[in-house]
Amino acid sequence: MAEITAQLVKDLRERTGAGMMECKSALKESNGDLGEAEIVLRKRGIASAGKKSSRVTKQGLIGTYIHHGGQLGVMVEVNCESDFVARTDDFKELVHDLAMHIAAADPQFVRKEDVTPAAIEREKDIQRARVIAEGKPANVADKIVEGRMGKFYEEVCLYEQPFVKENTLTVDQLIKTKIAKLGENIGVARFARFKVGGE
Amino acid sequence: MAEITAQLVKDLRERTGAGMMECKSALKESNGDLGEAEIVLRKRGIASAGKKSSRVTKQGLIGTYIHHGGQLGVMVEVNCESDFVARTDDFKELVHDLAMHIAAADPQFVRKEDVTPAAIEREKDIQRARVIAEGKPANVADKIVEGRMGKFYEEVCLYEQPFVKENTLTVDQLIKTKIAKLGENIGVARFARFKVGGE
Repeated sequence: MAEITAQLVKDLRERTGAGMMECKSALKESNGDLGEAEIVLRKRGIASAGKKSSRVTKQGLIGTYIHHGGQLGVMVEVNCESDFVARTDDFKELVHDLAMHIAAADPQFVRKEDVTPAAIEREKDIQRARVIAEGKPANVADKIVEGRMGKFYEEVCLYEQPFVKENTLTVDQLIKTKIAKLGENIGVARFARFKVGGE
Repeated sequence: MAEITAQLVKDLRERTGAGMMECKSALKESNGDLGEAEIVLRKRGIASAGKKSSRVTKQGLIGTYIHHGGQLGVMVEVNCESDFVARTDDFKELVHDLAMHIAAADPQFVRKEDVTPAAIEREKDIQRARVIAEGKPANVADKIVEGRMGKFYEEVCLYEQPFVKENTLTVDQLIKTKIAKLGENIGVARFARFKVGGE
């Protein structure tokens, strides 16, 4: 039997808005699993589907950038460790620069590790065919494909792209200079890029 | 053999930036399939992964709304039929109101038909258990569950939610009054809602 800590009860109350005794009982039934306890409360008619966690575990800012008279929009979440850093001009500038960069450079993923296996396979397949079409010998084909995959990551991953305002830096390097300056870990959590009529 | 129309060639050129003859040849090889033709060009080393379709098939606006000092952000794409309507104050007001509504009401889907089958099943399961826990007779349980699903859609679907600024209207009705006023079909294409540290 898992221990039902005060923190767990507090988390469940924040998630569901239910009372303390109700949360304790639901957590006992779910053996301390927060998500399951929420379902238990909903089955009892206590919590509703609309309520969601309001708990903020990280600090940071959401930035937006609108271009071409509302035809292109970007929203980005950038995290840091403290509210203090999130409010500095340096951090705000970074968030703005990243939103603008995403609008211009159109990345598909945040980091290399976010590229889906399907996208990697599709690209490798294309590059293999290209190498063969170029008549390269089979024994160097794999090396060439690997090299071109590096180029692919530079094209589709935000962190690998050259920063549009200063293309001697990658976005990764830009973020690292801010980390060094502000003394906190900083990372892009996610972004969305909408174009009117686009996918 | 599919006919390679001038429109297809134009579409492929816009997508890839490749020359006319290259596009014609790729389309012949793909038997008129645009996506396949793009892959053919990439395999030949002509088009690059970074280039994407710049073709806009619909009119409209991207709107954003930032709340709580950058802790919550919403981006929404609203479509209409003409650039003229997209530039009216009425349309701009609608886009702004929808972004603000999404920030406040936190919908999970645009329309009822966008709710995933998994989310529907999960909710029905919860409501069935709740009805049983309430000791309702089995022969009315299904009816009650159906009724409560309506409430669920109201909670999670943008179009079904009561509009936050005027809760006698649903968002669907709000959009319909704008359609009547502006004389064009109007619809929400998609939205994103980011909260710092959120899912």
